[in-house]
Amino acid sequence: MINGAFIPVDEAKIHITDLSILRGFAIFDYFRVRRGKAVFMEDHLERFFRSARLIGLNIPYEQSEVQGMIEGLIKKNGLEKFSIRLQLTGGYSDNGFEPATPNLFLLSLPFPNLPEKFFKEGWHVMTYKYQRELPEVKTTNYLTGIQILPLLEENDADAVLYHDGTHIRESDRSNFFIVNQEGVLVTPKDKILLGVSRKITLKVAQGVLKTEERDITLEELRSAKEMFLTSSTKPILPVTILDGKEVGNGKPGPVTTQLMELFQRYLEDYLGKA
Amino acid sequence: MINGAFIPVDEAKIHITDLSILRGFAIFDYFRVRRGKAVFMEDHLERFFRSARLIGLNIPYEQSEVQGMIEGLIKKNGLEKFSIRLQLTGGYSDNGFEPATPNLFLLSLPFPNLPEKFFKEGWHVMTYKYQRELPEVKTTNYLTGIQILPLLEENDADAVLYHDGTHIRESDRSNFFIVNQEGVLVTPKDKILLGVSRKITLKVAQGVLKTEERDITLEELRSAKEMFLTSSTKPILPVTILDGKEVGNGKPGPVTTQLMELFQRYLEDYLGKA
Repeated sequence: MINGAFIPVDEAKIHITDLSILRGFAIFDYFRVRRGKAVFMEDHLERFFRSARLIGLNIPYEQSEVQGMIEGLIKKNGLEKFSIRLQLTGGYSDNGFEPATPNLFLLSLPFPNLPEKFFKEGWHVMTYKYQRELPEVKTTNYLTGIQILPLLEENDADAVLYHDGTHIRESDRSNFFIVNQEGVLVTPKDKILLGVSRKITLKVAQGVLKTEERDITLEELRSAKEMFLTSSTKPILPVTILDGKEVGNGKPGPVTTQLMELFQRYLEDYLGKA
Repeated sequence: MINGAFIPVDEAKIHITDLSILRGFAIFDYFRVRRGKAVFMEDHLERFFRSARLIGLNIPYEQSEVQGMIEGLIKKNGLEKFSIRLQLTGGYSDNGFEPATPNLFLLSLPFPNLPEKFFKEGWHVMTYKYQRELPEVKTTNYLTGIQILPLLEENDADAVLYHDGTHIRESDRSNFFIVNQEGVLVTPKDKILLGVSRKITLKVAQGVLKTEERDITLEELRSAKEMFLTSSTKPILPVTILDGKEVGNGKPGPVTTQLMELFQRYLEDYLGKA
């Protein structure tokens, strides 16, 4: 769907003068559709509109109109399970630099079925020094994340963990949590993208253990008992190897496992609502 | 021209699963065509291929083949004066993240006719703290440069000058030079894009004055006698106001003016060659 019009995915093209292509000037959001319902749509729409504001783009639709497009797309597709990418670009610029009327598109994508193995064995994460530009905005800039893919492969790593030399931040497409030596669930809150799954993880953790949103030093990271990633595709994925070394006993920890179950229950409740 | 096929500009579209759109993963180069000849094409092609290597993309053509496309496009257009943007993207990715076969396109654009006023009066430049990501690569990432356009307008500035708190780097689409108190022409050499016009400016300055490629502190910047920007569209443009204060007597300086003439002569010689 481009600017409100349904277009078969194969024919979904945009002109090469769009600022997303020429200048990487675009924001997006992404969510799953389960049982014909857009998962945590309100949170994603809110963030999408916030990203647009922060970068200075005006979405030429009300939030309720975009919600109507999402619902229309789900109906049109007639699928119970898939995913949607919502993207806003700087539009077809006259001079190739200044934003014009933004282009909005909704792209239907397959449902992200991560192998069961990932959740049982956990991922290997590798630290890397890098600070995302405009971190609070969900921009389309993944230059570094993609450029270092060969480095991750060399190091047998499934994902990266960015840090600034002192504090850790986030992965390329996920937020990051640790259970520290004191048994506190800690996740960074500054200079990161505030993920929807991150927010829900913090919510379901209430009553289970103490939570803190604050900077995490590389030292605290190295001594953590458990760690995991969160994102809309995962939503909680254990990390069992950090920079080649086992985390805890090298298996998904009890807190992580419990939070995965609680998240799943929360999701079921959400989907069960009218 | 997309992947070697001529396409009218109006119909030049790419599919929205291209990594330039989804993940800002693309590099480009840009040059002018004068008297039917691509200006400094060899330098631009060399940099284009270097950008691709640095970011891990393989251009699916030899340099001579891309040169042939440029010459074909000039012939097809039948224009004496226009400009060409050469761009390579991460291609249509299967999983929306890992690069696939890159897409190469050549986009014909109008010739950049900057008003004579700019060269007579010079530009107002405003300093701003920011370090470009992968600065040696000509990526399509202009997030910050575009995001701060309203700030530039508020401050009546024509262009930005990035610095890291200590040293200046470059403008968003230009390199930066100063003539310092000692009458030396100085331009940064690290953490910047190595511009083609920058290289030629240094070349034509030989024999005119002493040149240095090294870091420039904000302090040295403030005390400079002259300053100017270089890029393929300008190629040398005087800067007469820095952060609201006049540079020298607020008019283009004698060294800048002389270099503009020498650059022009160098260009004429280039165009005159077979």
